[in-house]
This record gives sequence, C-alpha cells and structure tokens, in this order.
Amino acid sequence: MKMNDYTELINNAINDFMPISYPNKIFKAMKYTVTLPGKRLRPIMCLEACRMFGGNYKDALPTACAIEMLHAQTLIHDDLPCMDNDMYRRGQLTNHIVFGEAHAVLAGDALLTFAPQTILKHSKNLGTEKLIKIMEEYFQAAGAYGVIAGQVVDIESEKMSQAAAFDKDDEQLPEILNYIHTHKTADLFKLALRTGAIIADANEQQLKEITEFGQYLGIAFQIADDILDETSTFEEMGKTLGKDKEAGKLTYTSLYGIEKSREDLNKLIDKCFDILNNNNLKSEVFEKILNKIRIK
Amino acid sequence: MKMNDYTELINNAINDFMPISYPNKIFKAMKYTVTLPGKRLRPIMCLEACRMFGGNYKDALPTACAIEMLHAQTLIHDDLPCMDNDMYRRGQLTNHIVFGEAHAVLAGDALLTFAPQTILKHSKNLGTEKLIKIMEEYFQAAGAYGVIAGQVVDIESEKMSQAAAFDKDDEQLPEILNYIHTHKTADLFKLALRTGAIIADANEQQLKEITEFGQYLGIAFQIADDILDETSTFEEMGKTLGKDKEAGKLTYTSLYGIEKSREDLNKLIDKCFDILNNNNLKSEVFEKILNKIRIK
Repeated sequence: MKMNDYTELINNAINDFMPISYPNKIFKAMKYTVTLPGKRLRPIMCLEACRMFGGNYKDALPTACAIEMLHAQTLIHDDLPCMDNDMYRRGQLTNHIVFGEAHAVLAGDALLTFAPQTILKHSKNLGTEKLIKIMEEYFQAAGAYGVIAGQVVDIESEKMSQAAAFDKDDEQLPEILNYIHTHKTADLFKLALRTGAIIADANEQQLKEITEFGQYLGIAFQIADDILDETSTFEEMGKTLGKDKEAGKLTYTSLYGIEKSREDLNKLIDKCFDILNNNNLKSEVFEKILNKIRIK
Repeated sequence: MKMNDYTELINNAINDFMPISYPNKIFKAMKYTVTLPGKRLRPIMCLEACRMFGGNYKDALPTACAIEMLHAQTLIHDDLPCMDNDMYRRGQLTNHIVFGEAHAVLAGDALLTFAPQTILKHSKNLGTEKLIKIMEEYFQAAGAYGVIAGQVVDIESEKMSQAAAFDKDDEQLPEILNYIHTHKTADLFKLALRTGAIIADANEQQLKEITEFGQYLGIAFQIADDILDETSTFEEMGKTLGKDKEAGKLTYTSLYGIEKSREDLNKLIDKCFDILNNNNLKSEVFEKILNKIRIK
C-alpha cells in the first residue's frame, strides 16, 4: 500500500464509523476535528505496522481510526482557552471557536469513549483476548500515564518559564523536556505501532523493536515541530506559530538551539532506519515518513 | 451486606485503586473529586445487583469503583466555568477551584480512561468475554449516546429558557425533560445495575427487569433532586441551590409543579418496588435506597 491509498481508506472509514445521530451538535463537533485535513500519520503507522509484521492491514482499520479520534480529542482540549487558547488548527477554526467551549469539552470527552467503542464494535473478528490487549494499550496511552501526563508537565513547565527565564544549565531541563515529548507525542505513535503489531500477532521482541522505533520517531517528530514553529509560516503549518518562543516556553530549540536540534533530529531518524534495516523490515511508507521529517 | 459495609468497602477500594504517582498533581486532582464525601449510590447499586442475582459482590468491586470514577468525571466537567460554573460540590470546593481549570479538564479526561483501566487491571478473573461486555456497557453509558447526550440537551434547553420563558403547554417539553433525565442520571444507574447483573451471569430477562428498575429509579432520583433544589438548604445538600429556578431552567418542578412532581416521584418508587416483588428479588439495600428517595 502507498501513503495516499492508506489516507483515502482511513478518511472513508472515519466517515463511516462516525454517523451523525441525535443530539446532532455533539456528533458534528466530534466529527469536525477528527475530519480536519491532516496527514493521518498515526492511523497510517498503525496500518503499516500491521502489514509489516505480516497481518492484514484491514484488520487494523477500526483501531487506526480510533487512534485518530483520540488524537483529535487531545487537540480539542489542548486548544481550549484554559489550555493553549488556540484559534486555528490545521488551517481551520478550532473546535471551541466553532461549537462553543461547553460543546468542545463534551466533544473531547465523547471521543475518549467513542474511540475504543469503535474498536469493539468493528473489530469483533479479532477475538476478545486481542481486543482486551488493545484496550489496555489504549487506556495506558490516552490517560494519566500517557498523553495527559505529558500535557500536565508541559503546562507546569510553561508556568515555570513564565515565572523566570530558563536557566539553560539547569540539569533537570533535558529530562523534563524528554518526559513531555515522550508522553505528549511518542506515546500515541507507540500506541499506533504497537496495536498494529499486536493485531498482526507480532512477538515480544518485535513489539520491543517497534516500541523503540516509535519512541525515536515521536521525539524526532516533536523536534521537527519545534524547529518549524520557529522557521515556518502559518500557511505552511495551518496553526498560529511562534507562540512557544514568545511565551518563553521550554522547547527543543529553546533548550538546545536550532543547529543542535537539527543534528539530533537527523540522528534519531538514522536510528529509526537502523531498526528497520537490522530487523529486515521493509516499508516504503515508513521510509517516506522518516525522510519527510528530516530537515537538511 | 448493609449499606454502611458496602460504603466502607468501596471507599477503601477506591483508595487502593488510585495510588498517587508522577505527575502527582493530576492524580491528586482525579482522586480529590472521586473521594469527596458521597453516598456512593452507583457503586452500591452495582455490588447489590451482583449479589441479588447470585454473584459474589466482591467480583464487582473494581467495576463499581470505576463507575464512581466516571460519575466524578461528569461532576468535574459539569462544574467547569463554561458549563454550570459551580464553586461547591458535596460541601467542598469544586475541582477547578482547587486545581485550576486546565487541570480540572485533564483530571476529567484522565478519569474517563482510568475507570475502565481499573476494571481491566483488577477484574482479570472475570475472563475476556465478560470484560468486553462490561467495556461495551461502560462506553455506551459514558459517551455521546449516554451521559454526554443528556448533558448536551440539558445545555441546549438552558439556552432555550434564557431566550424565552418556557411555554408550559409546549408538547415537546416533557419528552425533552425525560430525555435529559434518562441520559444524565438514569444511564449511570442502569450501567451500575447492568454490569453488576452481568458479572453475576444474570439472564436476558433479568437484565431487562433490572434495566427498567434503573430507569425508574434514575428518573425518581432526579425528580427528588429537583424538588430538593427548591426546598432544601446548602447545608443539607452541599451545593449551591435554587440556581435552576433562578435561571428559569427546565426541571421537573418547573414543568409540573412541586405537588405533581412528588406524586410522580412516589409512583416511580412504587414501580421499583413492584419490579423487586414481582421477580421475588430480595434486597434490604434497594428497599432502603427507595425509601430514602421518597418524599412525603
């Protein structure tokens, strides 16, 4: 499968999995952010991991779409006035601007359970044991041990930076930054890759390799995002940029500077290629994703 | 088992199931609202339904506690400034007043996945098939087909009432009010009763009866709440009262008046007793709950 085929498959499936029913406004609000134009990176990773380990990628489609719903949930709540207070996302108005704050909170809440419900409803063929494994992976990544842990520490680091300019020599900062990136970003990547691999009956060693791959790719992706936040434009990115720098926020570039950030990014991408090569894993799709994130 | 024994068991189990780990503030925020002093009605219903249908109530303990966590999640988000904007809950400050709005949003989010994660972690003895059934019940009640549907229509009815005083002859109003109460309140009661019954291997007919029981009890509970909102005090209820009336909100008492509300409440309680008697179901605990809700 090619990237574009996956994207079309995912977009069609999301549309099918999310019918609008009463009360319409909440289902419309949920669907609005999930269907914003996007790269569908996480669901693509899930399908491709499944295929790469010998599974039928179609078996992973409900799980892949559920992870995109979960991702949308994090965006809706992160954009709220009490969090990042963002008006634009993927070039469109954010959920609370369109539907109001109360509905945006509820749409996010609803997605958090609609996502795993979608898996249970449309993946009965996987059997109950595998479904329970997928649920466990989902809860671990979606909750206070996963993305929410990252978001909480991110908010706290922001408060720190407002109270005082960062001391770049503070030896705790690299650890804090790594914690934020691991949980805010890499955890969803690992969820996508691991569930795809689990559906394909990957063994423990393979799960370990793909988890490491997801960790490196997640951090690389976040470094690239931090670099682009400083060097790109609204038109290219579809969201308000430079806010992090303005707020004096702890980011990869604010801590290490753009040059070292770019070096580290490319090293992480090399490590991802090594994992694929050392395990004889062939994937045009992952190669394409890795090459896209690289910044020369 | 007596009510007080159940309450103690539940409070101890919640404490065990919710250890504080890093990042501490989010786990503390989650636990704060779950452990506010409360009647633990929903988890008690879950344990008692399990016992009443011949199961071991201890098998239902993780599910019962998870439903209390879900209930706390709905309270945290309902109390937010963009929703009901409440400062007090169960006589204590609300979550966002204590922990800030961002953390309250995230604590609610975290509880939505922590609750079913608790079930999977501590109920492995139930087997994967039964666990999947419980997950399905949980997602249905927690999401846009359940409590959130009720909350959304409640918000919309509030906007309606702000735009114009209710026309009490509007024939849609009883239906809308019933929809709100069914989903906002009865859905969690039914979740508690049904999961307890499922754990006890209740058959389809028994599930049907206990669902009907939960529907009547849920509406009765909500009518009692509406009556007390008009006739009780802050000290008795632990939350700000009279707000609904002040806001001209659609409630059972605003639509039907206190006298008819009380009559309907007591009729529903009689129906609940009928279900217990007709099915030869003996439960001191349910009898006690029903008699407590009755208003003479």
